[in-house]
Amino acid sequence: MDLQQAKKQLMTYQSRMSAYNHALSLLNYDGDTAAPAGTAENRAHTMGVLTEDIYKISTSEETTGMLEFLDGHQDQLNEAERRMVWLLLKDIRFRQKIPMDEYVSYQRLLVESQAVWHRAKETSDFSLFEPYLEKVFATVAKFARYANPDMDPYDYWLNEYEPGINTETCDRFFSQLRNRLVPLIHQISKKPQVSNTCIKGHFPVQPQDCLSHYLMGLIGLDPQHVGLSTTEHPFTTSLGSHLDERITTHYYNEDYTYSMYSVIHEGGHALYDTGSAPELAFTVLDGGVSMGIHESQSRFYENILGRSKAFIRFLYPKLQELFPDHLAKYTWQDVYKAVNRVEPTLIRTEADEVTYSLHVMIRYELEKAVISGRLKVHDLPGEWNRLYKEYLGIDVPDDKHGVLQDSHWSFAAIGYFPSYALGSAYGAQFLKKMRETVDVDAALEKGDFSAINQWNREHIWKYGSLKTPDQILNGALGEAFDPDVYLDYLEAKCRDIYGI
Amino acid sequence: MDLQQAKKQLMTYQSRMSAYNHALSLLNYDGDTAAPAGTAENRAHTMGVLTEDIYKISTSEETTGMLEFLDGHQDQLNEAERRMVWLLLKDIRFRQKIPMDEYVSYQRLLVESQAVWHRAKETSDFSLFEPYLEKVFATVAKFARYANPDMDPYDYWLNEYEPGINTETCDRFFSQLRNRLVPLIHQISKKPQVSNTCIKGHFPVQPQDCLSHYLMGLIGLDPQHVGLSTTEHPFTTSLGSHLDERITTHYYNEDYTYSMYSVIHEGGHALYDTGSAPELAFTVLDGGVSMGIHESQSRFYENILGRSKAFIRFLYPKLQELFPDHLAKYTWQDVYKAVNRVEPTLIRTEADEVTYSLHVMIRYELEKAVISGRLKVHDLPGEWNRLYKEYLGIDVPDDKHGVLQDSHWSFAAIGYFPSYALGSAYGAQFLKKMRETVDVDAALEKGDFSAINQWNREHIWKYGSLKTPDQILNGALGEAFDPDVYLDYLEAKCRDIYGI
Repeated sequence: MDLQQAKKQLMTYQSRMSAYNHALSLLNYDGDTAAPAGTAENRAHTMGVLTEDIYKISTSEETTGMLEFLDGHQDQLNEAERRMVWLLLKDIRFRQKIPMDEYVSYQRLLVESQAVWHRAKETSDFSLFEPYLEKVFATVAKFARYANPDMDPYDYWLNEYEPGINTETCDRFFSQLRNRLVPLIHQISKKPQVSNTCIKGHFPVQPQDCLSHYLMGLIGLDPQHVGLSTTEHPFTTSLGSHLDERITTHYYNEDYTYSMYSVIHEGGHALYDTGSAPELAFTVLDGGVSMGIHESQSRFYENILGRSKAFIRFLYPKLQELFPDHLAKYTWQDVYKAVNRVEPTLIRTEADEVTYSLHVMIRYELEKAVISGRLKVHDLPGEWNRLYKEYLGIDVPDDKHGVLQDSHWSFAAIGYFPSYALGSAYGAQFLKKMRETVDVDAALEKGDFSAINQWNREHIWKYGSLKTPDQILNGALGEAFDPDVYLDYLEAKCRDIYGI
Repeated sequence: MDLQQAKKQLMTYQSRMSAYNHALSLLNYDGDTAAPAGTAENRAHTMGVLTEDIYKISTSEETTGMLEFLDGHQDQLNEAERRMVWLLLKDIRFRQKIPMDEYVSYQRLLVESQAVWHRAKETSDFSLFEPYLEKVFATVAKFARYANPDMDPYDYWLNEYEPGINTETCDRFFSQLRNRLVPLIHQISKKPQVSNTCIKGHFPVQPQDCLSHYLMGLIGLDPQHVGLSTTEHPFTTSLGSHLDERITTHYYNEDYTYSMYSVIHEGGHALYDTGSAPELAFTVLDGGVSMGIHESQSRFYENILGRSKAFIRFLYPKLQELFPDHLAKYTWQDVYKAVNRVEPTLIRTEADEVTYSLHVMIRYELEKAVISGRLKVHDLPGEWNRLYKEYLGIDVPDDKHGVLQDSHWSFAAIGYFPSYALGSAYGAQFLKKMRETVDVDAALEKGDFSAINQWNREHIWKYGSLKTPDQILNGALGEAFDPDVYLDYLEAKCRDIYGI
């Protein structure tokens, strides 16, 4: 085989795969946004066919031959080509270990299980979802054993979502968080609670939708390439390349900040994806490298920037313009306190920054227990409710507000949750480093995200998946990852809000 | 080759093609509904890849060998299999005559030209769209010559959209219409005009959206399988099979009947598609057989049922409930007259039943002239405006309200327009026949579509594409198609409204 020809074939192959992935992502996106409820089976049929074709093309002798050839000539590849070959071979070697019929029926299962989860959540009926969730957990465990028989299946998936982590590092990370957060929450519980009446009331969808589009422009999303829809559970997806990115939100009439922070959170994901260097489009290096780095960006925009004093001060006149009657009797300081109110609650996506990691920890422990066989899927709701009582001190009234609240398990994202907490911690350390060269508060007070975005683009976004998470962290931070920076950040904020 | 094996392969092939077509239809649908404006190129990349794969699979030796083998054993096939083989071979023989690179770049052209048409219409700037439209017309003519060098290219496309018709039959049909409609319009112009103030005013989107969903249920669409979105230009599309159908509408604040009749019109298309016998799903026989029969259903529900006295009488209380302030001072008779007001206007989709065919005739004549080379694309706006003055006596103020109003040319639907007028005429004759066994007026007065739908299902819908348009017409009517039935229907309505 000729090297130049193989390199050309490498690009053609990726371009073709990006088209198939575009179709699959769009089928998923449609299923969550516009599709009528009875169409899941029809969609599953199509996804089954396309997945089978992807499987055939990616495991064909033509593809694997080309990749193995290039893998044998690493010294003649540039950095991007080496990384492409490594990532593609990793994926193909995984797929080759999964029997094709199992892989195809797994894709069908995911479509059906997502549709059933929607119905189960609506009716708060875990028994509907249970048989699907059992299959999802069983398949995820089985696939991990196919992929690496010597590795603990849960470790396998943790490392897939955030390369470099495992149960041991997660246990240590979470215990470090627990040791400082639990006393902090206890201290806060003895202080007078701050009011949140300035964000509660009745807020029509129309001004909330205006706010979404305003925020998307403000934080720097390009409206030519980033779209907004509404879904039950907000998410972000790339369609084919970073040139077509979609975020979603959910409007609740009783609280405008739910959608507001969903838009900023998903907007952070979209900034990261669309910030890939242009030449990465239609390759496997396009878009973010790991869930942890992804969440470091989404939670950075949502919390570190979006709930900062400087940003709320800037945003307040816009909120007054959109909700004039409601906000007439409040100040920006009231909103700042309300959006930073610390209080154990039921729903992870509505949790404050301090209790948030406990929600994540509960999911982490449950996943670990189910995968290891110590806990049955049937007993998940009971165990969920028990842990919410133990860690957060609250009673879960029904499964809709409990074990059915997140969509992740319905699409087999098991091992994903820890990245939310890790990403939050990465973000705090990025902020500390960013402050060395960027006056973050001054920028936020003007609502000017350009210097902040420029820092993230240069240190994180532009690389897409070219660098590993470790390389990104080391390159951006110039020091080791240290969760105490995050805990310091949280404590400082609580001092400011609660005077602790 | 073994016959049973070939028959099985026939079904697998169609199932696979339906998946690819699902992906392509969804990419188009997304482009028209949710996609950000700058994503057309990204989408074109993906559609190019998928189209190339469809081309390769459908023209592969495996596929053509199987189809030719079955074609040689027609006596051992059932009716459905014979029709599948015939339709698939027709399509493949067409594709084989088009060089693959031209076919792929044509698909890319369509995506781009639709995006450009949207922008051109928005800014009323024909010069933006002109180079794309030139390519569309040139490609359509070239493909027709590839497909059948002995046939006039426009005849070729007329026959594609409505098998059995050509320029000669269309010229005759339109002149028959013109001979009775032009004097009719002239007579009406001398009568006092009926008022339309009961449908004009300011109507918020929210009650209009309620009306859409109410009407979809009323006419018998299954909400589990038929979805609604909004687009610039309303349309209907099947995604993969008749199990996932989407219709779209456009809400105008100043007139609630625009969206109301769009929903009923597109709903008629969706009833036809989703009415295919269940066993036709994932085969080439799924969904409607021709554009003429399709429009016979959409325009039947929209006009013949939707603008009938009996239906308006039934619907009026619902309209009053949704628009109470506006309709307080009107009666159902006022609405009946307003939605049947005859008046030459600029926009085809808003035209009344009587002038409608003149809009279609103008497009027919322009397409015929451009394809034959007698008219340049550059001169289309001028010629469009001249014909509107000549046939309808009105001045076209700009291209947005003129040559850029319809999306059809942007996706190369050239030869499609006549089917709107033909379908309207078929529908009137279906009504005459249906009345022999169904008390249509009594059903409409109760808002009960079941007997009407049952007649259409039995005579038209269930066949999908199993029967030819001629077979459908003959089977349903039991007599030859006669445009005078349609003209009698229109004259009777005008007598009722204008007392002619």
